[in-house]
Amino acid sequence: MARKPNPALGEKTGLEREPVLMTELVLPQHTNALGTIFGGVVMGWIDVAAAIAASRYSRSNVVTVSIDSLHFIAPIKLGFTVLVRADVTYVGKTSMEIEVTVNAENSMTGETRRATHAFLTFVAVDEFGRAKKVPPFVPRSNEEKRKFKEGEARRNLRLTLKDGLPKGV
Amino acid sequence: MARKPNPALGEKTGLEREPVLMTELVLPQHTNALGTIFGGVVMGWIDVAAAIAASRYSRSNVVTVSIDSLHFIAPIKLGFTVLVRADVTYVGKTSMEIEVTVNAENSMTGETRRATHAFLTFVAVDEFGRAKKVPPFVPRSNEEKRKFKEGEARRNLRLTLKDGLPKGV
Amino acid sequence: MARKPNPALGEKTGLEREPVLMTELVLPQHTNALGTIFGGVVMGWIDVAAAIAASRYSRSNVVTVSIDSLHFIAPIKLGFTVLVRADVTYVGKTSMEIEVTVNAENSMTGETRRATHAFLTFVAVDEFGRAKKVPPFVPRSNEEKRKFKEGEARRNLRLTLKDGLPKGV
Amino acid sequence: MARKPNPALGEKTGLEREPVLMTELVLPQHTNALGTIFGGVVMGWIDVAAAIAASRYSRSNVVTVSIDSLHFIAPIKLGFTVLVRADVTYVGKTSMEIEVTVNAENSMTGETRRATHAFLTFVAVDEFGRAKKVPPFVPRSNEEKRKFKEGEARRNLRLTLKDGLPKGV
Amino acid sequence: MARKPNPALGEKTGLEREPVLMTELVLPQHTNALGTIFGGVVMGWIDVAAAIAASRYSRSNVVTVSIDSLHFIAPIKLGFTVLVRADVTYVGKTSMEIEVTVNAENSMTGETRRATHAFLTFVAVDEFGRAKKVPPFVPRSNEEKRKFKEGEARRNLRLTLKDGLPKGV
Amino acid sequence: MARKPNPALGEKTGLEREPVLMTELVLPQHTNALGTIFGGVVMGWIDVAAAIAASRYSRSNVVTVSIDSLHFIAPIKLGFTVLVRADVTYVGKTSMEIEVTVNAENSMTGETRRATHAFLTFVAVDEFGRAKKVPPFVPRSNEEKRKFKEGEARRNLRLTLKDGLPKGV
Repeated sequence: MARKPNPALGEKTGLEREPVLMTELVLPQHTNALGTIFGGVVMGWIDVAAAIAASRYSRSNVVTVSIDSLHFIAPIKLGFTVLVRADVTYVGKTSMEIEVTVNAENSMTGETRRATHAFLTFVAVDEFGRAKKVPPFVPRSNEEKRKFKEGEARRNLRLTLKDGLPKGV
Repeated sequence: MARKPNPALGEKTGLEREPVLMTELVLPQHTNALGTIFGGVVMGWIDVAAAIAASRYSRSNVVTVSIDSLHFIAPIKLGFTVLVRADVTYVGKTSMEIEVTVNAENSMTGETRRATHAFLTFVAVDEFGRAKKVPPFVPRSNEEKRKFKEGEARRNLRLTLKDGLPKGV
Repeated sequence: MARKPNPALGEKTGLEREPVLMTELVLPQHTNALGTIFGGVVMGWIDVAAAIAASRYSRSNVVTVSIDSLHFIAPIKLGFTVLVRADVTYVGKTSMEIEVTVNAENSMTGETRRATHAFLTFVAVDEFGRAKKVPPFVPRSNEEKRKFKEGEARRNLRLTLKDGLPKGV
Repeated sequence: MARKPNPALGEKTGLEREPVLMTELVLPQHTNALGTIFGGVVMGWIDVAAAIAASRYSRSNVVTVSIDSLHFIAPIKLGFTVLVRADVTYVGKTSMEIEVTVNAENSMTGETRRATHAFLTFVAVDEFGRAKKVPPFVPRSNEEKRKFKEGEARRNLRLTLKDGLPKGV
Repeated sequence: MARKPNPALGEKTGLEREPVLMTELVLPQHTNALGTIFGGVVMGWIDVAAAIAASRYSRSNVVTVSIDSLHFIAPIKLGFTVLVRADVTYVGKTSMEIEVTVNAENSMTGETRRATHAFLTFVAVDEFGRAKKVPPFVPRSNEEKRKFKEGEARRNLRLTLKDGLPKGV
Repeated sequence: MARKPNPALGEKTGLEREPVLMTELVLPQHTNALGTIFGGVVMGWIDVAAAIAASRYSRSNVVTVSIDSLHFIAPIKLGFTVLVRADVTYVGKTSMEIEVTVNAENSMTGETRRATHAFLTFVAVDEFGRAKKVPPFVPRSNEEKRKFKEGEARRNLRLTLKDGLPKGV
């Protein structure tokens, strides 16, 4: 009865809401003279992981609209393993909010620490680059419901902050 | 009572046997003129994922010793999402066998197909590059036990094949 | 009389407060299937330009501490020229705020548009990675004075936002 | 009389059976924390050299179908020169077997050692990615004849192994 | 009265003769075992900066025709900041001469030295890769006039040298 | 009798004067919007091939001192195979002249054309970056003798040109 969904017919595979998990190794080309990773390298991984999550959710091409402020808590060193996880948290008409958490694992000791955390917003676009509608997101678990509400609040706050606060915050 | 393991004391964190999950996006630099990925790019991702798994298991540096034969079943195209998973399957005195499965997801439709599958062998090395002992692997689930047995068979076969068969098989 | 400053004696060369100007060409490896740049590539350029500005100001190694929220206003396409400019705006005891503006120039028409704008915070570190003091920043022009004040306000706001607002804003 | 072949008329230039020779320098981005090359980097070079040989032989686009098992015999270190050689050994209807040998030269001493050796199989494809016929390979020297025979044996063995042996060998 | 130029109407924006300024950080992947930059990396930056200048001047695609001899005066080390500046100096019917100066700044001391200097020639091409006319260059300042004259002399010399002197000079 | 040379004893292996052969595939990341290779990419390959030749000849680290003027004769397009060959032509006390020829092969037709040609000068350096002596080069064949003489002439010309001619030629 529960036949397998057929993506060719536009049926969801269930994969659309799966977290995107990415594991990267910190190589010499990612670090400065002190062996510490460049912030921009981490931002690049965050953007790709989030873009895959948004693209998978909407089954369309996406463009990055914004990234909320980002704090680098723990240093990431040469040879560390970096674990990136991206989840859809909130969905508007054409936009999607993606939450990304980054952990850094010292490969030699196993010690793992939260390195940074970010919220990104993407818009789904058609082949001419125009915004297009995305399927509505119905939160299921209590955690999803809480995150969805918080995502809505963040979206409103983003709009407010853009107007009333000093530039760039 | 069950206090958290302290990796600084050499205690296992449990992460040692976790699968390594890697998600990559196929970009123009990964593909040939027809938009199909280079086999070598996939091999590179396979090697890094497997090296992280072996390094995490042994909490030491590792070097690739061998990779068993590899068949590319489904084509991987520009814009696809590639999902790599690496698991420890068999462990000898200083060597570890890692199983890697690669799936390719058409980001636009969600259709996902097995792209390739590989077994790699790594050796743990100390800071002078000399082979060093790794912790024994005790298979727990029935699947782990079956894979461990098969891994042992593959190791023996590898040694035999190296001697008795036409070069390179 | 006004002999040339000798950097070997720790004398400032005047270059310390010069803006960092970076020009990049958008290549196939920077873009997605629609020929639009990845947000993460722009973030990488922003981080490197800002890191050079902070490193030049403090004449020491630096690490990225945070990046304020970032909005991508105009799309950046394959073949465009990207112009990045980084300026020191505010300096604390060990930290520096860098303002980065990014413009995108359509190389074929000359049309240039603001693509994004960001504030980043860096900390100067010694060879052991410990925060170290940086020279005080004395704003000179009226614009520098205004930006310095705004930078101070942003720093206070950052600390407040970290406590009282929904996570991630 | 022996007028120069005109490739525009589909005439062979003689280059089709020339070995592909590739020389690479091992840079920091190719190595791990111990200064040893990643297996995946070598696999990438092997795949590109073999793809050039197959593409040159068939004068068409090619895709990697399989790579036989690979053993890394000698370590390849930062600063070494890597010499890759790819030769066509066996040709079927649409597929080509390429033999690749990799030697590592210590640039400072001149000491050269065999690092690894591989057989890869490629299929020629038309512009829609469909397998297309390739010219028959007529072995000329005794060595070519021996290698051709062995290549045929390897192909049969590959098919057998795929069915009857433990997965992945 | 002095309304803003409209590039969409083919009107010049004034940007066409602006110097291209590029700032790069020397990372591990740019250097050899002694931490000195590869000449080829600097040549790559020179070519991109000059290509942007030529493309911006002609508002068309361009291809590199030649680069005059290049001397590396001061060593560029890992961690240095490299400053590249490209200016249009001479313009023929379809070709443009671009002067590039490269300075290397020791980020820790502020000491800055001329690293190298080059003249490159580009040709503007249409979408079929055929040479196309570029706007005439009218030198304005005395320095521009002197450089234009020298550029003309260099062009004539280049043609002479190609014929009468030992190959390659 | 003719026992194998032992490089560990500083004995020459014969490899020192072997040409360096490099084969590269032109990928999307090497080309501009029209699918033509960047000059800087070719210069990078030329520099690496020449550096390997100089390093192999002198069995020491080397730095690029100069590159004579370079003309790009034939366009190199996306998908082409590029063949680089580097030979030692002249050797001074601490410097070596390397001749590099670059051919471009249309992989689909086999048509091969000379793309460019260059002479580079390298200096051998010790571990502190100081110039060190290199073994004298004794030309053997008539071609080697002719090239050596021409190399000597080019060296003298380079010194003359540096003084008496317009800057940059």
